Amino acid sequence: MALEAGVDREEAVHKPSLDPLSRLLGSDLEHVNRLIIDRMQSPVALIPRLAGHIVASGGKRLRPMLTLGCARLCGYRGTRHVTLAAAVEFIHTATLLHDDVVDASDLRRGRETANAVWGNQPAILVGDFLFSRSFELMVEDGSLHILQILSRASSIIAEGEVLQLMTQNNLQTTETSYLEVIRAKTAELFAAASRIGAVVAERPHEEEMALDRFGRDLGIAFQLVDDLLDFSARQSELGKSIGDDFRDGKVTLPILLAFARGNDEERSFWRRTLEDMDQCPADLEHATTLVERHGALTETLSRARGYAASAIDALSVFPDGAERRALIEAASFATERSA
Amino acid sequence: MALEAGVDREEAVHKPSLDPLSRLLGSDLEHVNRLIIDRMQSPVALIPRLAGHIVASGGKRLRPMLTLGCARLCGYRGTRHVTLAAAVEFIHTATLLHDDVVDASDLRRGRETANAVWGNQPAILVGDFLFSRSFELMVEDGSLHILQILSRASSIIAEGEVLQLMTQNNLQTTETSYLEVIRAKTAELFAAASRIGAVVAERPHEEEMALDRFGRDLGIAFQLVDDLLDFSARQSELGKSIGDDFRDGKVTLPILLAFARGNDEERSFWRRTLEDMDQCPADLEHATTLVERHGALTETLSRARGYAASAIDALSVFPDGAERRALIEAASFATERSA
Repeated sequence: MALEAGVDREEAVHKPSLDPLSRLLGSDLEHVNRLIIDRMQSPVALIPRLAGHIVASGGKRLRPMLTLGCARLCGYRGTRHVTLAAAVEFIHTATLLHDDVVDASDLRRGRETANAVWGNQPAILVGDFLFSRSFELMVEDGSLHILQILSRASSIIAEGEVLQLMTQNNLQTTETSYLEVIRAKTAELFAAASRIGAVVAERPHEEEMALDRFGRDLGIAFQLVDDLLDFSARQSELGKSIGDDFRDGKVTLPILLAFARGNDEERSFWRRTLEDMDQCPADLEHATTLVERHGALTETLSRARGYAASAIDALSVFPDGAERRALIEAASFATERSA
Repeated sequence: MALEAGVDREEAVHKPSLDPLSRLLGSDLEHVNRLIIDRMQSPVALIPRLAGHIVASGGKRLRPMLTLGCARLCGYRGTRHVTLAAAVEFIHTATLLHDDVVDASDLRRGRETANAVWGNQPAILVGDFLFSRSFELMVEDGSLHILQILSRASSIIAEGEVLQLMTQNNLQTTETSYLEVIRAKTAELFAAASRIGAVVAERPHEEEMALDRFGRDLGIAFQLVDDLLDFSARQSELGKSIGDDFRDGKVTLPILLAFARGNDEERSFWRRTLEDMDQCPADLEHATTLVERHGALTETLSRARGYAASAIDALSVFPDGAERRALIEAASFATERSA
C-alpha cells in the first residue's frame, strides 16, 4: 500500500515518537500514573477494578503528557501540573468508558472493553465517578480559571459526541460537520490540556492562547489520523483495531472523500454498508480498496499534516529548546504513527 | 390499606406540603427554572430537546428548593443561590438520565423516559453534558468551597449507584448496605444542596454542618418513602409509578423486612421474583400483600419519620421563623406524601 510504503521510507530516516517528550518529563508522568491509581480508589471494589482495567489498557497518555510538557515549556517548576494532568486523563477515561457503551464496542486497543467485561451499567456509572473525581482533583488544585477551561471543554466534548450520533449512518454529512465533530469530541480536550500548562505557569494570555491553538490543531490532526488508521492501522502493534468505525457506521473523512469521488455503484456500496448497516465480513476490505483507490487516505493524511504544521507554528512564540523540540516531535508523531 | 387510612386521617387535619416553602421562595424558584432552560441550550438541537423533556417532566424541584430555602434561612439576600440551585438540579437531572439507562426504565413519573424516546446513546451523552454544565455554573459562582462540596457529593452519588448495582437481585443485602446505598445515592446530594445555603450566606461552619445533617436525614427519609411508595403510591397523582423497583429486582427496605419476617414459602417467592428475576404480572400484588402483612411498609414509614424528625432537630440551631417552619414542613412532606 502506497501509504505504508511512504511511512516505511520515513522510518529508515527517523520515525517521530513521543520518546523525547517522555524523557523530558522524567518522573512526572510516573507521578501522574500513581496519582491516577491513587484517586480511582473507592470502598466500592468494582470501581477501582473497572477503572484499573481501562487505565491500564495501554493508552498513550498523550493528553496528560501535553499538560506536563506545556507546563515545562512555560518554565513551570512546581508540582501542580501533575494533579492537573491526572484530572485531564480522568476526563478522557470517563469519555472512553461512555463512548464504548454508546458504540457498543467490545474491543479497545486489542483488549476487551469495560462494558464487554462488566456490562453497560457499571461502565456508565464508573465513568460518572471518574468524571466527578476529575473535578475533585481540579478543586484541590484550586484554580478557578483552570476549572473554567476544563468544565467548558467537558461540555463541548459531550456536545461533540451527540453531534457525532447525528452524523452516524449519514452520508449527507458535510466535511464541515465532520470537522465540527472532531473539533469538539477530540480537539477541545487537547486544547484545554495544553493551555492549562501556561495557566499553571502563570504565563500571559498570549501564551495560553498559543498553547490552546497548538493543542487544538494537534487534536484535529490526531483524530484525522485515527480515522484513517481505521482502514490501515497495524493491528499487530496493539493500537486501534481496524474497521471499528466502519462497523459502527461512523462517517469519517476518508469515507466522505471516497463517497464524493465514487461512481454510482460505489455510492450504493457505501449506502448499504453505512446507512442501511447491511454489512458482510468482506465489506471492510472492499471499503479499504475504495478509500485507497480514490486517494482518500493520502488526502486525509495530508490534511492531518497541515493541522500538525499549524500546531507546530503555534509554538513559535516560545523560545527554542528541548521542551519545544519534544512538543514539535509529538505533533509529528500524531500524523506519522502507524497505530 | 392501613397505611393509606392513616395518611387520609392526617389529611383531614393538615397534610404537610411544599407550598409554604414555595411561597417563601417567591420568584427565586422561577429564576432557577429559567436559568435551567437557559443553560441547557446548545447548538446541537437534540440536547435541549432531550434535556427539556426530563426537566419538564414534573419533578418536585426539591433539591434546588433546599438550596434556596436554606440560603434564606441563613439570611442570604443575594442572587448566587439561584445559580447554585440550578447547578444542583443539573447534577440531579444528569443522574436521572443515567439511572434510567442503567435501569432500562421506560417510564418516569408516568411519562416516557428520554432513553425510551431517543435511545440510550443520547441519554448517556446529554447526561454528561448537563453534568459538565453543572460545573460550569459552579465555576461562574466562583466558590471553591462549594465546588469542593458538590464535586465530592457527585463522586459519592456515583459510588452509591455502583453499590446499588451490587445489592440488586441480592436478598443477602444487609440493612446496613441498603442504608449505605441510599445515603450515597440520595442523601448526599440533599446534604450538599442544603449545606451550600449556609456557605453562600457565609455562615459559620456549625450552621453549614447543621444544614448538612438536615439535608442528609431528610434525604434518607425521602428515599425510604420513595421505596415504600413503590408498593403503595397513588399512581393517579402522576408520581412514582408503582412496582418499578420490584420489577428491576431492587432490594429495598420493605423487601428486606418482609424477607426477614417471611416463612420459607414467602422467601422462595422473593428469591424467584428478585434473584432469579422470574416474574409474572400478578407477582407485584402478592409482593404488596407480603410487605403489608409483615408490617414492612409501616416499619419503613416509621424509620423514615425518625430520620425526618432528626432532620427537623438539626434546624434547632436556627431561630424560629417562616423559613425554618417552611423547611420543617418540607421534611414532614417527605414522609407524609402519597406520590
